[in-house]
Amino acid sequence: MFAIVKNRPEKGLWAEDRLNAQKTLGPNDVRIKVSHAGVCGTDFHIYKWDDWAQGRVKVPTVLGHEFVGNIVEMGSAVSGYTVGERVSAECHITCGVCRFCRTGQGHLCVDTQIIGVDRDGAFTNEVVMPASNLWKIHPDIPDAHAAIFDPLGNAMHTVSAFNLAGKTVMITGAGAIGLMAVAMSKARGAAKVIVLEPQEAKRRMAEALGADMTLDPTQSGANDKIKAFTNAAMPDVLLEMSGNEKAIQQGMTLLAMGGEVAMLGIPPKAITLDVASTIIFKGLTVKGIIGRKMFETWYQVDTFVRTNPDAVDKIITHVLPAERFAEAFTLMEEGKAGKVVLKF
Amino acid sequence: MFAIVKNRPEKGLWAEDRLNAQKTLGPNDVRIKVSHAGVCGTDFHIYKWDDWAQGRVKVPTVLGHEFVGNIVEMGSAVSGYTVGERVSAECHITCGVCRFCRTGQGHLCVDTQIIGVDRDGAFTNEVVMPASNLWKIHPDIPDAHAAIFDPLGNAMHTVSAFNLAGKTVMITGAGAIGLMAVAMSKARGAAKVIVLEPQEAKRRMAEALGADMTLDPTQSGANDKIKAFTNAAMPDVLLEMSGNEKAIQQGMTLLAMGGEVAMLGIPPKAITLDVASTIIFKGLTVKGIIGRKMFETWYQVDTFVRTNPDAVDKIITHVLPAERFAEAFTLMEEGKAGKVVLKF
Amino acid sequence: MFAIVKNRPEKGLWAEDRLNAQKTLGPNDVRIKVSHAGVCGTDFHIYKWDDWAQGRVKVPTVLGHEFVGNIVEMGSAVSGYTVGERVSAECHITCGVCRFCRTGQGHLCVDTQIIGVDRDGAFTNEVVMPASNLWKIHPDIPDAHAAIFDPLGNAMHTVSAFNLAGKTVMITGAGAIGLMAVAMSKARGAAKVIVLEPQEAKRRMAEALGADMTLDPTQSGANDKIKAFTNAAMPDVLLEMSGNEKAIQQGMTLLAMGGEVAMLGIPPKAITLDVASTIIFKGLTVKGIIGRKMFETWYQVDTFVRTNPDAVDKIITHVLPAERFAEAFTLMEEGKAGKVVLKF
Amino acid sequence: MFAIVKNRPEKGLWAEDRLNAQKTLGPNDVRIKVSHAGVCGTDFHIYKWDDWAQGRVKVPTVLGHEFVGNIVEMGSAVSGYTVGERVSAECHITCGVCRFCRTGQGHLCVDTQIIGVDRDGAFTNEVVMPASNLWKIHPDIPDAHAAIFDPLGNAMHTVSAFNLAGKTVMITGAGAIGLMAVAMSKARGAAKVIVLEPQEAKRRMAEALGADMTLDPTQSGANDKIKAFTNAAMPDVLLEMSGNEKAIQQGMTLLAMGGEVAMLGIPPKAITLDVASTIIFKGLTVKGIIGRKMFETWYQVDTFVRTNPDAVDKIITHVLPAERFAEAFTLMEEGKAGKVVLKF
Repeated sequence: MFAIVKNRPEKGLWAEDRLNAQKTLGPNDVRIKVSHAGVCGTDFHIYKWDDWAQGRVKVPTVLGHEFVGNIVEMGSAVSGYTVGERVSAECHITCGVCRFCRTGQGHLCVDTQIIGVDRDGAFTNEVVMPASNLWKIHPDIPDAHAAIFDPLGNAMHTVSAFNLAGKTVMITGAGAIGLMAVAMSKARGAAKVIVLEPQEAKRRMAEALGADMTLDPTQSGANDKIKAFTNAAMPDVLLEMSGNEKAIQQGMTLLAMGGEVAMLGIPPKAITLDVASTIIFKGLTVKGIIGRKMFETWYQVDTFVRTNPDAVDKIITHVLPAERFAEAFTLMEEGKAGKVVLKF
Repeated sequence: MFAIVKNRPEKGLWAEDRLNAQKTLGPNDVRIKVSHAGVCGTDFHIYKWDDWAQGRVKVPTVLGHEFVGNIVEMGSAVSGYTVGERVSAECHITCGVCRFCRTGQGHLCVDTQIIGVDRDGAFTNEVVMPASNLWKIHPDIPDAHAAIFDPLGNAMHTVSAFNLAGKTVMITGAGAIGLMAVAMSKARGAAKVIVLEPQEAKRRMAEALGADMTLDPTQSGANDKIKAFTNAAMPDVLLEMSGNEKAIQQGMTLLAMGGEVAMLGIPPKAITLDVASTIIFKGLTVKGIIGRKMFETWYQVDTFVRTNPDAVDKIITHVLPAERFAEAFTLMEEGKAGKVVLKF
Repeated sequence: MFAIVKNRPEKGLWAEDRLNAQKTLGPNDVRIKVSHAGVCGTDFHIYKWDDWAQGRVKVPTVLGHEFVGNIVEMGSAVSGYTVGERVSAECHITCGVCRFCRTGQGHLCVDTQIIGVDRDGAFTNEVVMPASNLWKIHPDIPDAHAAIFDPLGNAMHTVSAFNLAGKTVMITGAGAIGLMAVAMSKARGAAKVIVLEPQEAKRRMAEALGADMTLDPTQSGANDKIKAFTNAAMPDVLLEMSGNEKAIQQGMTLLAMGGEVAMLGIPPKAITLDVASTIIFKGLTVKGIIGRKMFETWYQVDTFVRTNPDAVDKIITHVLPAERFAEAFTLMEEGKAGKVVLKF
Repeated sequence: MFAIVKNRPEKGLWAEDRLNAQKTLGPNDVRIKVSHAGVCGTDFHIYKWDDWAQGRVKVPTVLGHEFVGNIVEMGSAVSGYTVGERVSAECHITCGVCRFCRTGQGHLCVDTQIIGVDRDGAFTNEVVMPASNLWKIHPDIPDAHAAIFDPLGNAMHTVSAFNLAGKTVMITGAGAIGLMAVAMSKARGAAKVIVLEPQEAKRRMAEALGADMTLDPTQSGANDKIKAFTNAAMPDVLLEMSGNEKAIQQGMTLLAMGGEVAMLGIPPKAITLDVASTIIFKGLTVKGIIGRKMFETWYQVDTFVRTNPDAVDKIITHVLPAERFAEAFTLMEEGKAGKVVLKF
């Protein structure tokens, strides 16, 4: 089988022709022939072999955790699925028995393995998953869209942290997930979406996806422009997608009193925060967002993808044959890609 | 009239015999003969004349913002009250016309004046308040309890930020407000209350008010003790009452995944926070708490005071004649007082 | 002054030239020169003089409770407004001192008077209102839209009872308020809106306002059609606008397990409800909706009207000179009108 | 094996000595040696063989769905449990793959089988359950308490439908579940609990469990007494446990404006409800309650049982050897029992 593997502790990824490691399925497992897989920022960290990747990933590991494919074999105890069925899957394999797993909050399980990070992933011809991680793909959804339910789920988990109906939403950071959040915020009832993003090209993309106002946060005057745009009310909700210390500080400062903050972007180290003047005196509510709700978020993504296919098309800038995976990482390195999907 | 006044820009407070400044009432105002007034940490800051006080308070100002008394005169347009009626009052005088004031969130009004801070307060024989700030005191409630609805309201606003029913609540800081929060958390359904407080005497007081476990956070081993006490589940909710950077960091670290944090204690400056490992990866919800909800919090305090009078008695350690106000501040300076109430 | 008055206990309304009854303003009152006023179903009940009207309204009473105008005089204690300012007003004059009025839930005050029903209303040249009832109209909003904030508020209060983002919403009854709810549901993030309405013309109007599916509930097959349309998931939310017993029963039956119901339409008498098979076994949540939240709903309507002016235009089918008020009621009687606005 | 069986379509239950029907376990199943089992109202319906039972239950069926026991054998794919471990289990065996099962709302799954009703149950020496239904019992919990997690869960699901902190709660019906709700409401922060129950003995029991006021609803004057007791505020929350039409009507009528209703009691047929004057004009929120949240409710019950063992002791009036099961039903028939537990 063809596989894209981190097989040396240095920058790069390598194609391999490897035997299928998992010959026999567990009774609750399913074997899936991969059709398409998305390339994630996490894959890019592992490709670059940065500090985080060196501390977390063991070589060799097959990468890839966003994918769609068809079931080719099912364990003896699997029910509710059929061979041939098209599925994606939640990439967090959780313990299944802790209080979070048992109350619809599996994203908070502390005994979690991520495919493509902690064990072999989906950048290959076949992947084995527990049946309880599967997600059936509606016939109306094209493969490329189905392949990226996982990152769409990160965006959706963030966007659905608060009721946005009639609110002014501010998004800091317009990478792939920030762009998804723009379209989702509008679809979920935000009255206005303001995007703060330093790169011109991403601001244009945010506008194409429905942003009502975009600003370069490295330029002065953001406060005055937003004040004018919001009739002095200032934004109600901040969706923090950058992980950037200054963006977090600026975002909280620009929010209205009583505002709501959903934080998805991961600051690489501890930050300085004037908790008194932002969180306390403003009466903010701040929610940290991790993973996707299993499986509430997946239902929300399914609805979004089916009712907003054009937005998803705009977010996917490249679909490449899997063999050309090196191009995907070069495009990402050069900042030229939105979302890249590989065809296996 | 007797008044306790900050009349010089230096440490101290001075008694004055002053004419009643507000001879004529506005049509919507009410004049109240003060019976009892609570001494607050804010008063102590002004007494010490620290940086915050120097930047905010103008001399001369009559102090005091927590009180109870009886209506002696009403403006021409006041209705719903009668002369002689016993009342307390919300000390934040808000604009009344902004979106927060008009939606039951007056505590978020940015055009607010606090009596005893921004204008003359209640440490005197008579105080004038807008009728819309008044709170009728139920006959069952003694004056000393009625005098401290304001700080009880700060505690209640924090405690009611989340549904505590069946949860393990951790409180960092057992000053007067932290102690109130202990009793309120138990009354509002917390299964267990854990208090982190460095002072032995305050830990004892927390236990008397219902804390199930108290710990000195300056000693090592808090994590293991709480882990054992909670069957490894760790606390569900953190009520942060200290404003101390280390307490905030420790509190968030000790919380369970998906935990909830209400922050009332005010850090004197910006703090360092590992947002990724605490808020984001743990999926926490953090709410900043300011003032009291007008007037939802007051109804909640009213219920608490009437159903838990013994707890309020334990929190009030001293009731002194107003003339002996200097003693109150000495007691506070020496850390010997819970809540001190002055009788006018 | 010209006024439209119920001055005899029989069907009809009569124009009068009457002196301004309220010569002197109270200190907190404001006099408003009426520019436009909406005609409501309530006015139609009073016009017809049905049982409800006979039991509630005393003659003579000036009708009208939805309006916009300009302030021409202010009481001595009014602040935050200026003469000449354009305003609408909440028509429920509440006590202001009960626990509902003091917690942003004035719509639940039991000591309420409605203008145009319990005291003289706005179908005249000048109306006097308490300043606390006023609502400032944004310059971008045309008078005809501003005149109907009240019924838009009924619709919005219903639509905002639940978070609709990504949900399938079913609306029973497409009168003026039901039509508003269609547009609002879409604007507030509903994925799909299904309308059940027996009148063909109203179904067409619902489609023009964004309904994704409309059905005649008097025809069989609604269940199968909705099942097919929703992929067997059935609607998540029911907005009940008809007050019709069969519609309520059918609506609850068609809902998905765990569905949510907001009830605004008023059944004229007690109904039969299989509480076990609908509410209990399905785990439904049902909310009764009355009036508008003061003033949260008004802020929501303001946002909607400014971001969806085209929808409001479609709902207002007629703007007539006030003198031609009889036409308005004839149009309503003949079922030919959406919303009618009178110009004073 | 000893089993209590409905083996004839007539009133009664019969002891049988039967072979263990389930010799071989499925890979995800667990065999449990039953130690104790609770007798439920549902069992009583089947014992009496009423209309509902005749329509739902096939003979022969082993009864019993509330139990505790120890694992004696595990299927090949079961993990997270050990042989010998003490467990109870959720009696609803759900499909596991629908949107409700996958979002922590398995109680709303429409493809559900109940043990002891739809298939053989736990009134026998051994029962087989899917591992995903198991609930581990904490060592501090006695067997008799562990046996009734299921009905405690019905009560808890109802009580936790709303945040009760500081509220006045009214409970209509003080059968076993109503009595549990009394103790739970107090434990979860209700300020006052009022119970409406026609039987004197049950009212006394409600008082022993913490009810602050009990009333006989068949006597006049309930409204005045509750008005006096609540200072005219009236109850905030109604927990409906009777399924009685009059109780539902009366309960909703007695509630405060904006009140909250959780309905668990099942009316045997459709009822008449003045939806306008109760639900709509009062702005009520009504929630239907079915089963237990899987497994959020179980965590809540676990906490309650461990922190309130005395209350559970009061609710269990009889623990009988399983062979004396006929006595249990006689006690229930004569209204002499609270909760009866059988020892196997």
